Amino acid sequence: MEHLEGRQSVLAALQVRQRRFEVILLKSGAHEDRFDEVLALAESLAVPVRRVDARELDSLAHGSSHGGMIAIVSPKPRTSVTQLLEILDRLSDAPLLLLLEGVDDARNLGFTLRSAEALGVHAVLVKKHLWDFDAIEVARPASGAYERIPLVQIDDTSILETLIARGFGLFGCVANAKRQMYDVDLREPTILAIGGEKRGLSGAVRSICTRLITIPTTGGASSLSLSHATAIVLAEAMRQRHPPNNVGAG
Amino acid sequence: MEHLEGRQSVLAALQVRQRRFEVILLKSGAHEDRFDEVLALAESLAVPVRRVDARELDSLAHGSSHGGMIAIVSPKPRTSVTQLLEILDRLSDAPLLLLLEGVDDARNLGFTLRSAEALGVHAVLVKKHLWDFDAIEVARPASGAYERIPLVQIDDTSILETLIARGFGLFGCVANAKRQMYDVDLREPTILAIGGEKRGLSGAVRSICTRLITIPTTGGASSLSLSHATAIVLAEAMRQRHPPNNVGAG
Repeated sequence: MEHLEGRQSVLAALQVRQRRFEVILLKSGAHEDRFDEVLALAESLAVPVRRVDARELDSLAHGSSHGGMIAIVSPKPRTSVTQLLEILDRLSDAPLLLLLEGVDDARNLGFTLRSAEALGVHAVLVKKHLWDFDAIEVARPASGAYERIPLVQIDDTSILETLIARGFGLFGCVANAKRQMYDVDLREPTILAIGGEKRGLSGAVRSICTRLITIPTTGGASSLSLSHATAIVLAEAMRQRHPPNNVGAG
Repeated sequence: MEHLEGRQSVLAALQVRQRRFEVILLKSGAHEDRFDEVLALAESLAVPVRRVDARELDSLAHGSSHGGMIAIVSPKPRTSVTQLLEILDRLSDAPLLLLLEGVDDARNLGFTLRSAEALGVHAVLVKKHLWDFDAIEVARPASGAYERIPLVQIDDTSILETLIARGFGLFGCVANAKRQMYDVDLREPTILAIGGEKRGLSGAVRSICTRLITIPTTGGASSLSLSHATAIVLAEAMRQRHPPNNVGAG
Protein backbone atom coordinates (compact mmCIF):
# COMPACT_ATOMS: atom_id res chain seq x y z
CA MET A 1 0.00 0.00 0.00
CA GLU A 2 1.05 3.59 -0.46
CA HIS A 3 -0.69 6.82 0.33
CA LEU A 4 -2.10 9.88 -1.35
CA GLU A 5 -1.77 13.35 0.12
CA GLY A 6 -4.17 16.22 -0.27
CA ARG A 7 -7.79 16.62 -1.25
CA GLN A 8 -7.08 16.96 -4.96
CA SER A 9 -5.16 13.69 -5.30
CA VAL A 10 -7.65 11.77 -3.15
CA LEU A 11 -10.60 13.12 -5.11
CA ALA A 12 -8.98 12.32 -8.46
CA ALA A 13 -8.15 8.78 -7.35
CA LEU A 14 -11.71 8.21 -6.12
CA GLN A 15 -13.09 9.47 -9.43
CA VAL A 16 -10.78 7.36 -11.57
CA ARG A 17 -11.36 4.19 -9.47
CA GLN A 18 -8.11 2.53 -10.40
CA ARG A 19 -6.72 2.26 -6.89
CA ARG A 20 -8.12 0.22 -4.05
CA PHE A 21 -8.84 2.44 -1.02
CA GLU A 22 -8.15 1.08 2.43
CA VAL A 23 -9.08 4.21 4.34
CA ILE A 24 -9.20 7.99 4.06
CA LEU A 25 -7.76 9.85 7.03
CA LEU A 26 -9.17 13.30 7.73
CA LYS A 27 -7.81 15.71 10.31
CA SER A 28 -10.14 16.04 13.31
CA GLY A 29 -11.58 19.51 13.47
CA ALA A 30 -10.82 20.30 9.82
CA HIS A 31 -13.33 22.51 8.02
CA GLU A 32 -15.13 19.60 6.44
CA ASP A 33 -16.95 21.78 3.89
CA ARG A 34 -13.76 21.76 1.85
CA PHE A 35 -13.93 17.98 1.69
CA ASP A 36 -17.65 17.63 0.87
CA GLU A 37 -17.08 16.25 -2.59
CA VAL A 38 -14.51 13.71 -1.41
CA LEU A 39 -16.64 12.60 1.53
CA ALA A 40 -19.75 12.15 -0.58
CA LEU A 41 -17.86 10.12 -3.17
CA ALA A 42 -16.13 8.04 -0.48
CA GLU A 43 -19.50 7.25 1.05
CA SER A 44 -21.00 6.18 -2.26
CA LEU A 45 -18.00 3.92 -2.89
CA ALA A 46 -18.05 2.57 0.69
CA VAL A 47 -14.55 3.82 1.43
CA PRO A 48 -14.13 4.26 5.19
CA VAL A 49 -13.17 7.72 6.49
CA ARG A 50 -11.44 8.04 9.84
CA ARG A 51 -10.88 11.29 11.75
CA VAL A 52 -7.39 11.42 13.22
CA ASP A 53 -5.43 14.08 15.01
CA ALA A 54 -3.04 16.36 13.18
CA ARG A 55 0.01 14.67 14.63
CA GLU A 56 -0.92 11.30 13.21
CA LEU A 57 -1.43 12.80 9.74
CA ASP A 58 1.83 14.68 9.90
CA SER A 59 3.72 11.56 10.91
CA LEU A 60 2.40 9.71 7.86
CA ALA A 61 2.87 12.56 5.40
CA HIS A 62 5.96 13.04 3.22
CA GLY A 63 5.46 16.77 3.08
CA SER A 64 3.44 19.53 4.60
CA SER A 65 0.97 19.85 1.77
CA HIS A 66 -1.56 17.18 2.73
CA GLY A 67 -3.94 19.92 3.86
CA GLY A 68 -5.70 17.65 6.33
CA MET A 69 -6.33 14.57 4.18
CA ILE A 70 -4.40 11.39 3.41
CA ALA A 71 -5.65 8.16 1.85
CA ILE A 72 -4.11 4.72 2.21
CA VAL A 73 -4.39 3.08 -1.19
CA SER A 74 -2.98 0.46 -3.54
CA PRO A 75 -0.38 1.76 -6.03
CA LYS A 76 -1.51 3.33 -9.28
CA PRO A 77 -1.78 0.47 -11.76
CA ARG A 78 0.42 0.63 -14.84
CA THR A 79 -1.50 0.61 -18.07
CA SER A 80 -0.47 -2.45 -20.10
CA VAL A 81 0.27 -2.28 -23.81
CA THR A 82 -2.93 -4.23 -24.46
CA GLN A 83 -4.90 -1.70 -22.42
CA LEU A 84 -3.19 1.14 -24.26
CA LEU A 85 -4.23 -0.27 -27.62
CA GLU A 86 -7.80 -0.60 -26.33
CA ILE A 87 -7.75 3.03 -25.19
CA LEU A 88 -6.48 4.12 -28.60
CA ASP A 89 -9.16 2.13 -30.39
CA ARG A 90 -11.87 3.88 -28.41
CA LEU A 91 -10.66 7.42 -29.20
CA SER A 92 -12.60 9.58 -31.60
CA ASP A 93 -9.66 12.02 -31.98
CA ALA A 94 -6.29 11.22 -33.49
CA PRO A 95 -4.23 9.83 -30.59
CA LEU A 96 -1.57 12.00 -28.98
CA LEU A 97 0.99 10.10 -26.90
CA LEU A 98 3.97 11.36 -24.97
CA LEU A 99 7.16 9.36 -24.53
CA LEU A 100 9.47 10.57 -21.77
CA GLU A 101 13.08 9.47 -21.43
CA GLY A 102 15.58 10.50 -18.81
CA VAL A 103 13.31 12.41 -16.45
CA ASP A 104 15.58 12.96 -13.46
CA ASP A 105 13.21 14.25 -10.85
CA ALA A 106 9.81 13.25 -9.46
CA ARG A 107 8.59 16.83 -9.33
CA ASN A 108 9.45 17.49 -12.97
CA LEU A 109 7.58 14.33 -13.92
CA GLY A 110 4.55 15.53 -11.96
CA PHE A 111 4.51 18.91 -13.70
CA THR A 112 4.95 17.20 -17.04
CA LEU A 113 1.95 14.94 -16.44
CA ARG A 114 -0.11 17.96 -15.45
CA SER A 115 0.73 19.80 -18.68
CA ALA A 116 0.23 16.61 -20.69
CA GLU A 117 -3.31 16.22 -19.41
CA ALA A 118 -4.14 19.90 -19.91
CA LEU A 119 -2.87 19.75 -23.48
CA GLY A 120 -4.71 16.66 -24.61
CA VAL A 121 -2.29 13.76 -24.20
CA HIS A 122 -4.08 10.41 -24.09
CA ALA A 123 -1.34 8.34 -22.45
CA VAL A 124 2.28 8.73 -21.36
CA LEU A 125 4.95 6.14 -22.09
CA VAL A 126 7.76 5.96 -19.55
CA LYS A 127 10.81 3.84 -18.89
CA LYS A 128 10.89 1.42 -16.02
CA HIS A 129 13.04 3.49 -13.66
CA LEU A 130 10.36 6.18 -13.37
CA TRP A 131 8.36 3.82 -11.20
CA ASP A 132 11.07 4.12 -8.57
CA PHE A 133 10.15 7.76 -7.98
CA ASP A 134 8.26 8.59 -4.81
CA ALA A 135 4.68 8.57 -6.08
CA ILE A 136 3.69 11.32 -3.64
CA GLU A 137 6.37 13.62 -5.01
CA VAL A 138 5.09 12.97 -8.52
CA ALA A 139 1.44 13.37 -7.58
CA ARG A 140 1.72 16.69 -5.74
CA PRO A 141 2.66 18.96 -8.68
CA ALA A 142 0.51 16.89 -11.04
CA SER A 143 -2.67 18.27 -9.47
CA GLY A 144 -4.66 15.07 -9.94
CA ALA A 145 -3.32 14.37 -13.44
CA TYR A 146 -1.13 11.60 -12.03
CA GLU A 147 -4.30 9.71 -11.09
CA ARG A 148 -6.10 10.35 -14.34
CA ILE A 149 -3.56 9.95 -17.11
CA PRO A 150 -2.68 6.39 -18.24
CA LEU A 151 1.00 5.57 -17.67
CA VAL A 152 2.48 2.79 -19.75
CA GLN A 153 5.82 1.26 -18.90
CA ILE A 154 7.94 0.51 -21.95
CA ASP A 155 11.03 -1.66 -21.74
CA ASP A 156 12.11 -1.46 -25.36
CA THR A 157 10.93 0.12 -28.60
CA SER A 158 8.55 -2.66 -29.66
CA ILE A 159 5.36 -0.76 -28.81
CA LEU A 160 6.71 2.26 -30.67
CA GLU A 161 7.34 0.12 -33.74
CA THR A 162 3.85 -1.35 -33.44
CA LEU A 163 2.34 2.12 -33.37
CA ILE A 164 4.48 3.38 -36.24
CA ALA A 165 3.30 0.39 -38.27
CA ARG A 166 -0.25 1.50 -37.49
CA GLY A 167 0.44 4.92 -38.95
CA PHE A 168 1.66 6.93 -35.94
CA GLY A 169 4.31 9.58 -36.44
CA LEU A 170 7.10 9.41 -33.84
CA PHE A 171 8.60 12.88 -33.44
CA GLY A 172 11.74 13.16 -31.38
CA CYS A 173 12.48 16.57 -29.86
CA VAL A 174 16.18 17.31 -29.87
CA ALA A 175 18.06 20.56 -29.44
CA ASN A 176 19.89 20.53 -32.73
CA ALA A 177 17.30 19.28 -35.23
CA LYS A 178 17.05 21.34 -38.40
CA ARG A 179 13.31 20.95 -38.65
CA GLN A 180 11.14 23.04 -36.35
CA MET A 181 8.10 21.60 -34.61
CA TYR A 182 6.02 23.94 -36.79
CA ASP A 183 7.14 22.07 -39.89
CA VAL A 184 5.64 18.69 -39.05
CA ASP A 185 2.02 17.59 -39.04
CA LEU A 186 0.97 16.79 -35.48
CA ARG A 187 -2.70 16.34 -36.36
CA GLU A 188 -2.26 12.70 -37.31
CA PRO A 189 -1.77 9.94 -34.70
CA THR A 190 1.34 11.18 -32.94
CA ILE A 191 3.92 10.14 -30.40
CA LEU A 192 6.06 13.00 -29.12
CA ALA A 193 9.35 11.79 -27.65
CA ILE A 194 11.17 14.07 -25.22
CA GLY A 195 14.53 13.27 -23.68
CA GLY A 196 16.12 14.38 -20.45
CA GLU A 197 18.40 17.37 -20.20
CA LYS A 198 21.56 15.42 -19.66
CA ARG A 199 21.52 12.78 -22.36
CA GLY A 200 18.59 13.68 -24.59
CA LEU A 201 16.80 10.89 -26.40
CA SER A 202 18.31 7.42 -26.46
CA GLY A 203 19.86 6.15 -29.67
CA ALA A 204 17.25 3.38 -29.83
CA VAL A 205 14.39 5.89 -29.92
CA ARG A 206 16.15 8.40 -32.18
CA SER A 207 16.88 5.73 -34.73
CA ILE A 208 13.20 4.97 -35.30
CA CYS A 209 11.83 8.52 -35.17
CA THR A 210 9.77 9.60 -38.15
CA ARG A 211 11.30 13.07 -37.77
CA LEU A 212 13.55 14.88 -35.35
CA ILE A 213 12.20 18.31 -34.48
CA THR A 214 13.27 21.24 -32.38
CA ILE A 215 11.73 24.15 -30.52
CA PRO A 216 13.12 27.45 -31.78
CA THR A 217 14.93 29.34 -29.02
CA THR A 218 17.17 32.37 -29.03
CA GLY A 219 20.24 30.18 -29.07
CA GLY A 220 21.47 31.76 -25.86
CA ALA A 221 23.24 29.90 -23.13
CA SER A 222 20.20 28.42 -21.49
CA SER A 223 18.00 25.75 -22.92
CA LEU A 224 14.54 24.62 -21.90
CA SER A 225 13.96 22.07 -19.17
CA LEU A 226 12.29 18.80 -20.10
CA SER A 227 8.93 19.72 -18.63
CA HIS A 228 8.89 23.14 -20.28
CA ALA A 229 9.97 21.79 -23.65
CA THR A 230 7.19 19.22 -23.37
CA ALA A 231 4.58 21.86 -22.59
CA ILE A 232 5.62 23.93 -25.60
CA VAL A 233 5.54 21.04 -28.08
CA LEU A 234 2.19 19.85 -26.75
CA ALA A 235 0.76 23.36 -27.08
CA GLU A 236 1.84 23.30 -30.73
CA ALA A 237 0.07 19.95 -31.23
CA MET A 238 -3.01 21.52 -29.63
CA ARG A 239 -2.76 24.53 -31.96
CA GLN A 240 -2.56 22.34 -35.05
CA ARG A 241 -5.41 20.13 -33.87
CA HIS A 242 -7.69 23.01 -32.87
CA PRO A 243 -6.69 25.82 -35.20
CA PRO A 244 -7.43 29.34 -33.98
CA ASN A 245 -9.33 31.66 -36.29
CA ASN A 246 -6.76 34.38 -36.66
CA VAL A 247 -3.18 33.41 -36.15
CA GLY A 248 -1.16 36.41 -35.11
CA ALA A 249 -3.74 38.96 -36.19
CA GLY A 250 -4.17 41.91 -33.89
CA MET B 1 27.07 38.97 0.86
CA GLU B 2 25.41 35.83 -0.43
CA HIS B 3 26.76 32.88 -2.33
CA LEU B 4 26.43 31.14 -5.66
CA GLU B 5 26.49 27.38 -5.99
CA GLY B 6 27.73 25.40 -8.94
CA ARG B 7 29.97 26.05 -11.90
CA GLN B 8 27.20 27.27 -14.16
CA SER B 9 25.98 30.01 -11.82
CA VAL B 10 29.49 31.13 -10.96
CA LEU B 11 30.50 31.28 -14.61
CA ALA B 12 27.38 33.20 -15.60
CA ALA B 13 27.92 35.72 -12.80
CA LEU B 14 31.57 36.24 -13.78
CA GLN B 15 30.53 36.80 -17.38
CA VAL B 16 27.78 39.25 -16.55
CA ARG B 17 29.94 41.20 -14.07
CA GLN B 18 27.07 42.57 -12.05
CA ARG B 19 28.06 41.03 -8.76
CA ARG B 20 31.15 41.79 -6.73
CA PHE B 21 33.14 38.61 -6.06
CA GLU B 22 34.82 38.17 -2.71
CA VAL B 23 36.20 34.71 -3.35
CA ILE B 24 35.54 31.51 -5.28
CA LEU B 25 35.84 28.32 -3.26
CA LEU B 26 36.83 25.18 -5.13
CA LYS B 27 36.88 21.70 -3.65
CA SER B 28 40.43 20.45 -3.13
CA GLY B 29 41.16 17.53 -5.38
CA ALA B 30 38.29 18.35 -7.78
CA HIS B 31 38.88 17.60 -11.45
CA GLU B 32 39.85 21.13 -12.29
CA ASP B 33 39.47 20.62 -16.05
CA ARG B 34 35.74 21.06 -15.57
CA PHE B 35 36.37 24.49 -14.09
CA ASP B 36 38.91 25.72 -16.67
CA GLU B 37 36.66 28.39 -18.09
CA VAL B 38 35.68 29.71 -14.64
CA LEU B 39 39.26 29.71 -13.39
CA ALA B 40 40.59 31.54 -16.45
CA LEU B 41 37.90 34.18 -16.20
CA ALA B 42 38.39 34.55 -12.45
CA GLU B 43 42.09 35.10 -13.01
CA SER B 44 41.53 37.74 -15.67
CA LEU B 45 39.11 39.55 -13.35
CA ALA B 46 41.45 39.17 -10.36
CA VAL B 47 38.90 37.18 -8.36
CA PRO B 48 40.69 35.06 -5.75
CA VAL B 49 40.16 31.29 -5.83
CA ARG B 50 40.68 29.24 -2.69
CA ARG B 51 40.84 25.44 -2.52
CA VAL B 52 38.91 24.14 0.46
CA ASP B 53 37.99 20.70 1.65
CA ALA B 54 34.66 19.12 0.78
CA ARG B 55 33.33 19.49 4.31
CA GLU B 56 33.77 23.26 4.29
CA LEU B 57 31.93 23.55 0.97
CA ASP B 58 29.12 21.31 2.15
CA SER B 59 28.71 23.33 5.33
CA LEU B 60 28.24 26.52 3.29
CA ALA B 61 25.98 25.02 0.65
CA HIS B 62 22.19 25.07 0.77
CA GLY B 63 21.91 21.92 -1.28
CA SER B 64 24.00 19.13 -2.66
CA SER B 65 24.26 20.48 -6.16
CA HIS B 66 27.25 22.81 -5.82
CA GLY B 67 29.38 20.26 -7.65
CA GLY B 68 32.57 21.44 -5.97
CA MET B 69 32.29 25.20 -6.45
CA ILE B 70 30.79 28.05 -4.43
CA ALA B 71 31.39 31.80 -4.79
CA ILE B 72 30.90 34.45 -2.11
CA VAL B 73 29.39 37.43 -3.88
CA SER B 74 27.31 40.56 -3.48
CA PRO B 75 23.60 40.13 -4.23
CA LYS B 76 22.37 40.36 -7.81
CA PRO B 77 21.55 44.03 -8.37
CA ARG B 78 17.98 44.90 -9.25
CA THR B 79 17.63 46.66 -12.55
CA SER B 80 16.10 50.08 -11.98
CA VAL B 81 13.33 51.48 -14.12
CA THR B 82 15.79 53.97 -15.56
CA GLN B 83 18.16 51.16 -16.47
CA LEU B 84 15.28 49.19 -17.97
CA LEU B 85 14.38 52.10 -20.23
CA GLU B 86 18.02 52.36 -21.29
CA ILE B 87 18.09 48.65 -22.11
CA LEU B 88 14.91 48.99 -24.16
CA ASP B 89 16.32 51.97 -26.07
CA ARG B 90 19.34 49.95 -27.10
CA LEU B 91 17.38 46.99 -28.49
CA SER B 92 17.17 46.47 -32.21
CA ASP B 93 14.24 44.03 -31.83
CA ALA B 94 10.80 44.86 -30.52
CA PRO B 95 11.07 44.50 -26.74
CA LEU B 96 9.55 41.46 -25.06
CA LEU B 97 9.02 41.82 -21.31
CA LEU B 98 7.57 39.38 -18.82
CA LEU B 99 5.60 40.47 -15.75
CA LEU B 100 5.19 37.80 -13.07
CA GLU B 101 2.69 38.06 -10.25
CA GLY B 102 2.06 35.61 -7.46
CA VAL B 103 4.97 33.23 -8.04
CA ASP B 104 4.83 31.08 -4.93
CA ASP B 105 8.04 29.13 -5.11
CA ALA B 106 11.72 29.91 -5.71
CA ARG B 107 12.20 26.90 -7.93
CA ASN B 108 9.29 27.80 -10.18
CA LEU B 109 10.70 31.30 -10.51
CA GLY B 110 14.08 29.83 -11.49
CA PHE B 111 12.58 27.63 -14.20
CA THR B 112 10.53 30.56 -15.46
CA LEU B 113 13.63 32.74 -15.78
CA ARG B 114 15.38 29.97 -17.67
CA SER B 115 12.52 29.64 -20.18
CA ALA B 116 12.26 33.42 -20.43
CA GLU B 117 15.88 33.75 -21.46
CA ALA B 118 15.70 30.86 -23.91
CA LEU B 119 12.61 32.37 -25.53
CA GLY B 120 13.90 35.89 -26.00
CA VAL B 121 12.65 37.89 -23.02
CA HIS B 122 14.65 41.08 -22.50
CA ALA B 123 13.74 41.75 -18.86
CA VAL B 124 11.44 40.36 -16.18
CA LEU B 125 9.29 42.56 -13.98
CA VAL B 126 8.55 41.16 -10.53
CA LYS B 127 6.84 42.25 -7.36
CA LYS B 128 8.82 43.09 -4.30
CA HIS B 129 8.19 39.89 -2.36
CA LEU B 130 10.07 37.80 -4.90
CA TRP B 131 13.29 39.24 -3.57
CA ASP B 132 12.63 37.40 -0.33
CA PHE B 133 13.14 34.06 -2.06
CA ASP B 134 16.36 32.21 -1.38
CA ALA B 135 18.49 33.34 -4.34
CA ILE B 136 20.27 29.99 -4.48
CA GLU B 137 16.98 28.15 -4.85
CA VAL B 138 16.04 30.50 -7.70
CA ALA B 139 19.45 30.27 -9.38
CA ARG B 140 19.78 26.49 -9.45
CA PRO B 141 16.97 25.64 -11.91
CA ALA B 142 17.63 28.85 -13.84
CA SER B 143 20.87 27.43 -15.25
CA GLY B 144 22.66 30.78 -15.30
CA ALA B 145 19.67 32.74 -16.59
CA TYR B 146 19.16 34.22 -13.12
CA GLU B 147 22.52 35.96 -13.50
CA ARG B 148 21.97 37.12 -17.05
CA ILE B 149 18.39 38.30 -17.25
CA PRO B 150 17.58 41.79 -15.92
CA LEU B 151 15.10 41.69 -13.02
CA VAL B 152 13.14 44.86 -12.35
CA GLN B 153 11.21 45.32 -9.13
CA ILE B 154 7.86 47.00 -9.63
CA ASP B 155 5.86 48.35 -6.71
CA ASP B 156 2.85 49.61 -8.63
CA THR B 157 1.64 49.85 -12.21
CA SER B 158 3.37 53.14 -13.08
CA ILE B 159 6.11 51.58 -15.21
CA LEU B 160 3.47 49.53 -17.03
CA GLU B 161 1.51 52.68 -17.79
CA THR B 162 4.70 54.39 -19.00
CA LEU B 163 5.41 51.52 -21.36
CA ILE B 164 1.81 51.34 -22.62
CA ALA B 165 2.04 55.07 -23.37
CA ARG B 166 5.16 54.29 -25.41
CA GLY B 167 3.24 51.79 -27.51
CA PHE B 168 3.69 48.52 -25.65
CA GLY B 169 0.88 46.00 -25.61
CA LEU B 170 0.20 44.57 -22.14
CA PHE B 171 -1.28 41.08 -22.54
CA GLY B 172 -2.62 39.45 -19.43
CA CYS B 173 -2.85 35.65 -19.48
CA VAL B 174 -5.90 34.42 -17.65
CA ALA B 175 -7.66 31.08 -17.70
CA ASN B 176 -11.05 32.29 -18.84
CA ALA B 177 -10.25 34.90 -21.50
CA LYS B 178 -12.24 34.53 -24.71
CA ARG B 179 -9.33 35.54 -26.90
CA GLN B 180 -6.57 33.02 -27.54
CA MET B 181 -2.92 33.98 -27.50
CA TYR B 182 -2.89 33.21 -31.23
CA ASP B 183 -5.30 36.06 -31.85
CA VAL B 184 -3.11 38.91 -30.66
CA ASP B 185 -0.05 40.43 -32.27
CA LEU B 186 2.99 39.72 -30.09
CA ARG B 187 5.47 41.09 -32.66
CA GLU B 188 5.12 44.64 -31.42
CA PRO B 189 6.69 45.84 -28.14
CA THR B 190 5.04 43.48 -25.69
CA ILE B 191 4.63 42.87 -21.98
CA LEU B 192 3.22 39.45 -21.15
CA ALA B 193 1.67 39.37 -17.68
CA ILE B 194 1.28 35.98 -15.98
CA GLY B 195 -0.36 35.50 -12.62
CA GLY B 196 0.09 32.81 -10.00
CA GLU B 197 -2.05 29.73 -9.83
CA LYS B 198 -3.96 30.72 -6.74
CA ARG B 199 -5.09 34.25 -7.43
CA GLY B 200 -4.20 34.91 -11.05
CA LEU B 201 -3.39 38.46 -12.09
CA SER B 202 -4.09 41.32 -9.70
CA GLY B 203 -7.01 43.61 -10.42
CA ALA B 204 -4.59 46.53 -10.80
CA VAL B 205 -2.76 44.82 -13.66
CA ARG B 206 -5.86 43.32 -15.27
CA SER B 207 -7.53 46.69 -15.39
CA ILE B 208 -4.82 48.19 -17.59
CA CYS B 209 -4.20 45.20 -19.88
CA THR B 210 -4.47 45.89 -23.60
CA ARG B 211 -6.00 42.43 -23.98
CA LEU B 212 -6.66 39.39 -21.83
CA ILE B 213 -5.60 36.19 -23.55
CA THR B 214 -5.69 32.51 -22.80
CA ILE B 215 -3.83 29.35 -23.73
CA PRO B 216 -6.18 26.79 -25.24
CA THR B 217 -6.30 23.62 -23.14
CA THR B 218 -8.54 20.59 -23.20
CA GLY B 219 -10.71 22.03 -20.46
CA GLY B 220 -9.98 19.04 -18.24
CA ALA B 221 -9.52 19.24 -14.53
CA SER B 222 -5.90 20.28 -14.50
CA SER B 223 -4.61 23.63 -15.58
CA LEU B 224 -1.09 24.68 -16.43
CA SER B 225 1.37 25.81 -13.79
CA LEU B 226 2.66 29.38 -13.94
CA SER B 227 6.05 28.43 -15.32
CA HIS B 228 4.58 26.15 -17.98
CA ALA B 229 1.96 28.67 -19.04
CA THR B 230 4.74 31.24 -19.32
CA ALA B 231 6.86 28.98 -21.52
CA ILE B 232 3.95 28.31 -23.86
CA VAL B 233 3.02 31.98 -24.30
CA LEU B 234 6.64 32.95 -24.82
CA ALA B 235 7.06 30.23 -27.45
CA GLU B 236 4.06 31.73 -29.26
CA ALA B 237 5.71 35.18 -29.15
CA MET B 238 8.85 33.56 -30.57
CA ARG B 239 6.84 31.91 -33.34
CA GLN B 240 5.20 35.18 -34.33
CA ARG B 241 8.49 37.05 -34.22
CA HIS B 242 10.46 34.42 -36.18
CA PRO B 243 7.86 32.82 -38.41
CA PRO B 244 8.60 29.30 -39.61
CA ASN B 245 8.38 28.61 -43.32
CA ASN B 246 5.64 26.02 -43.24
CA VAL B 247 3.24 26.18 -40.37
CA GLY B 248 1.78 22.75 -39.73
CA ALA B 249 2.75 21.36 -43.12
CA GLY B 250 4.11 17.82 -43.15
